[in-house]
This record gives sequence, C-alpha cells and structure tokens, in this order.
Amino acid sequence: MSATWGKCKSVLITGSSRGLGLQMVKDLAKRSSRPATIIASARNPTGSTDLQELSKSYPGVHIVTLDVESEQSVSSALQEVRSIVGSEGLSCLINNAAIGSIEDINMVTPEAMMKNFQINTVAPLFVTKAFLPLLQTAAARSAGMGIHRAAVINMSSILGSVTLNEGEGANFKSYSYRASKAALNMMTKCLAADLDSDGILCMSLHPGWVRTDMGGPLADLSVEESVPALLSVLADLSEKDQGGFKDYRGDNLPW
Amino acid sequence: MSATWGKCKSVLITGSSRGLGLQMVKDLAKRSSRPATIIASARNPTGSTDLQELSKSYPGVHIVTLDVESEQSVSSALQEVRSIVGSEGLSCLINNAAIGSIEDINMVTPEAMMKNFQINTVAPLFVTKAFLPLLQTAAARSAGMGIHRAAVINMSSILGSVTLNEGEGANFKSYSYRASKAALNMMTKCLAADLDSDGILCMSLHPGWVRTDMGGPLADLSVEESVPALLSVLADLSEKDQGGFKDYRGDNLPW
Ligand SMILES: NC(=O)c1ccc[n+]([C@@H]2O[C@H](COP(=O)([O-])OP(=O)(O)OC[C@H]3O[C@@H](n4cnc5c(N)ncnc54)[C@H](OP(=O)(O)O)[C@@H]3O)[C@@H](O)[C@H]2O)c1
Ligand SMILES: NC(=O)c1ccc[n+]([C@@H]2O[C@H](COP(=O)([O-])OP(=O)(O)OC[C@H]3O[C@@H](n4cnc5c(N)ncnc54)[C@H](OP(=O)(O)O)[C@@H]3O)[C@@H](O)[C@H]2O)c1
Repeated sequence: MSATWGKCKSVLITGSSRGLGLQMVKDLAKRSSRPATIIASARNPTGSTDLQELSKSYPGVHIVTLDVESEQSVSSALQEVRSIVGSEGLSCLINNAAIGSIEDINMVTPEAMMKNFQINTVAPLFVTKAFLPLLQTAAARSAGMGIHRAAVINMSSILGSVTLNEGEGANFKSYSYRASKAALNMMTKCLAADLDSDGILCMSLHPGWVRTDMGGPLADLSVEESVPALLSVLADLSEKDQGGFKDYRGDNLPW
Repeated sequence: MSATWGKCKSVLITGSSRGLGLQMVKDLAKRSSRPATIIASARNPTGSTDLQELSKSYPGVHIVTLDVESEQSVSSALQEVRSIVGSEGLSCLINNAAIGSIEDINMVTPEAMMKNFQINTVAPLFVTKAFLPLLQTAAARSAGMGIHRAAVINMSSILGSVTLNEGEGANFKSYSYRASKAALNMMTKCLAADLDSDGILCMSLHPGWVRTDMGGPLADLSVEESVPALLSVLADLSEKDQGGFKDYRGDNLPW
C-alpha cells in the first residue's frame, strides 16, 4: 500500500490539528514510500504542538492555515499551496475538517442544522472548487484514475447513510450531523459526475467509529487502527470507485 | 382512493399559493369523499386569487398564513391551526413549500446552498416539530398507520436521490437543490424512527417532473396528472411505508 502512496505526489488534508486529520499526516509522514509533499492544514495550526513537531521532524510536511468556513482563508491557503506544489499541481485533497453533534428531535435547533451544513457540506464543496485548478493541473500530467493522479476524498460517515438510518442503525440521534453528511454524500456524487472528464476521482469515506474528540472514548477504534486501514483503501482507489462510498475496510456503503 | 381520503380528518399543506400545493388543495376540495378540514397555508395567501376562490367555493377549506422560514410565522400558524382542528388534532401534514435552482459547479454559491438548506430541509423539520403535538393528538385517537391516523409527507424529489445521481441521472445540475433534498430525505428517516412509536407515519414523495413555476414548461406532467396520482399513493400508505421514498406512481425510489 505504502508503495502506492509513493505514487501520490502531494496531499492536502483539512482539519489536521487533531483526531483523524492529524493521524493521517503523522502516518503518511513516517512512511518510506510517501507523497513528497504533505500539506497539513488547520484553522489554528500554532495551537497544535503535535503538528508543529511533525513538520520539524519530517521533510516535506508543510503547515498551511486554512479555516474551511472562511472564503478569505481558503483563498490565502490556495495561494500558499499553489506556491508549494508549483507546476505539479495537487494530487489529493482530503476534506476531513468537520464538526459533530449529538441531538435528538427535542434538542435539535435550526442554528445547529445550519452550522453543520456550513462546515460539513458547504465548506468541503467550496474548498474543492477553490483547489480545482491545482487538481486539474495534477490530473493533466498523468493517466488512469486514483490518488496517483488526482482525487477528492470527502470524509463522510456511516451516519450520513439514509439507507442505514433505521432499526439499530437509527439509535444514534443527530439530526444536524446526519443531514450534513447525507448532503455531503450528494456533493460527492455531483463532483464525481462533473470532474470525471478531468480525470479527477471523487469519493466518500467512512473512517469507522474512532476514539477522537468527535468519536468519544467509547468508540470502536483507535486512530492508529483506523488511519492505516483508510489510507490503504485510498491507495487502492481506481476508476471503479468514482462517486463511491466506502468504509475504512474497503466495504461499499449504501447511500 | 377518494374513499380513503375521506378517512383523513384534516390535512395541512404548505406552499399552497401555486403549483403542486395549490393543485392538491383544489383536487381534495372538490372530492365527495375528502378530509373535512383542508388547511391551505401560504406565506402570502392574499396574493393567490386561486386560493381565495377555493376557500369561498368549498366548505372546510381554511387559509392560514405560514412562511415556513419564519419561527414567528410558524408559531402563529400553529395557534390558528390548533383552533381549527380542535381536539381532533391534525391528521396529515404535507411539507410541500420549497425553492428550486439550476446551477452547475461554476455557478453554485455558498449563499444558494444555505438558502436551499434553510427552506427545503430545515423548515420542513421545524414545521413538523411545531405541529407534532397536533399530529400526536390525532394519532392517539386512532390505530394502524397512514393518513387516516397521522402522517408527515415530505415533498422531496428524485433529484435528492444520491443513488440515481449518475449517468443520465446526473444530467440535471443543481448542487444546492440536490443537497437540500438529500438532506430532507435523511430528515424523513430520522423522523420515521422517532415518531413511529407515536403512530405517526413519515415518508418522502417525488411528484414526478411537473409543469409548475419550478418544474418549467418542458416538464413531463401537468399538475392535473401528477396530483391525483400522488394523492392516490398517499391514500394507500400503511405501516410498510414508514420512512419510505416513493414517486407519484407508487414506485419505491432508492436513497
Ligand atoms: N471519529 C469518528 O468516529 C468519526 C466517524 C465518522 C466520520 N468521522 C469524520 O472524520 C473526520 C475527522 O473527524 P475526527 O474524529 O478527527 O474529529 P475531531 O477530532 O473532532 O477533529 C475535527 C477536526 O476538524 C477541524 N475543524 C473544525 N472546524 C474547522 C474549520 N472551520 N476549519 C478548519 N478545521 C476545522 C478541527 O480543528 P480545530 O482543532 O481547530 O477545532 C479538527 O482538526 C470528520 O469529517 C468526521 O465527521 C469521524
Ligand atoms: N415541479 C416539479 O417538477 C417538482 C419535481 C420534484 C419535486 N418537486 C417538489 O414539489 C414541491 C412543490 O413544487 P412546485 O413545483 O409546486 O413549486 P412552485 O410552483 O415553485 O411552488 C413553490 C411553492 O412553495 C412556496 N414557498 C416557497 N418558499 C416559501 C416559504 N418560505 N414559506 C411558504 N411557502 C413557500 C411558494 O410560495 P410563494 O407563491 O409565496 O412563492 C409556492 O407556493 C416542492 O417541494 C418541490 O421541490 C417539484
């Protein structure tokens, strides 16, 4: 697998200050066969000592400030990333930053709904739109389909599966998070249809239920278990995965 | 079918000023076997002469001002509807009001995304929450599952099906509308899980591609073709349709 990540020239990850984003940066940085350029973005990177240390210890790990909610921040980050990747373009964008919330029908508010849509759905779409020229540049330099060429990975969730939200699958209550991830899955499908002719792959990924600030201490997996598995899934992506929805084991999930 | 609508004591339809909402009011009002109470709501009902005439010509057709976006308006409408339906409660809520937009990846804006979420996803959820006590009252007076007892019908769209948004199904480009209807479908599933124990049915409905202001002049169906068909589908609903997604012909649609 790591061999395939070596064929991916550059990766940009949003929300790298902690949790799965941070662990993806850490895991990739340590590999012998890895993207030469790893861009760890966070809205407040100086607040993450882990991230600062990673960029000091490993070559080619760049830290870029990126608040996915802010048009201004996205546009400055684009200039910075453009100068880092140069004429190679950007091979892989991982839209990982998100917020979560637990609320049942009594607790859900319009404000929570709109905030989740803003960060979990709208932001990934407009981050992708902003970085599209760099992804197109990378795609034009290669053939086939996958992270070796150009890919947009939306970190979604099994909680965004409408199909699975019934019976035991409906036990976890979060109107706003579920709605935002279902809508994100729709964005994945829209982007897959629109970017296919550019040679850019777009898919939704469920990382498992993971012990992070979002997943909580009772979750099934550590970040050290989830991340290598999901990076293997990404390494294996090809044209058959265009517009797909997979979990960290590579199993397809229903919309 | 019309016999079954006779077993539905009251129906509240949002967005009844024109299009499918207006035609549902018109069609039901004219039936011999119909809900005794038909509440046609619109944000600006005085602007719809069609609606005014219907309420004058047919008994039991009430007009209520309801802007689904406004908490204040929802709460005044609730008081009004409560006094209309009294101790019978409300049998059927049809969340029909919505906006539409056509935009490809180049044209979509964050503002369009948020506006579509606000009206097409968040509003139906909070209208449902507001009217829930009246739906629960109706449900408590009857048994089984369907419009004879208590039901929430979310007017969705085939464009909200993530599954069908590929190949030819992806030709119609609207990031914001598609995302909002996919998220609405998730709300249907959340509500179905949460309201089942109250005996309230909740489902998503696709009316077909219909010649209204939203559907445009090239659409497949007239409102006179779509509405009787979708009212038949609603009349036939039973417990097996809890959390379902059907079109106006009664065919199940994939999420
Ligand atoms: N953990 C799970 O069990 C699980 C399950 C399914 C899916 N997921 C998905 O996996 C992804 C990562 O989740 P996680 O568990 O690692 O969550 P987490 O531990 O809560 O971390 C969230 C990350 O997103 C960042 N973020 C939030 N708002 C941001 C903004 N406006 N701009 C930039 N960054 C922002 C946070 O940055 P700050 O440090 O600045 O707040 C943080 O780095 C999310 O998309 C999540 O929905 C997680
Ligand atoms: N037509 C189709 O082909 C088609 C296909 C699939 C699904 N649908 C769905 O079917 C439903 C009805 O569509 P339609 O074709 O009848 O659309 P339409 O002709 O554009 O009518 C939309 C209705 O929604 C109302 N509305 C919009 N915003 C509102 C608000 N904030 N508060 C209250 N009412 C509001 C409008 O009221 P005003 O007159 O005050 O603006 C109007 O009555 C929608 O949910 C739509 O998404 C339609």
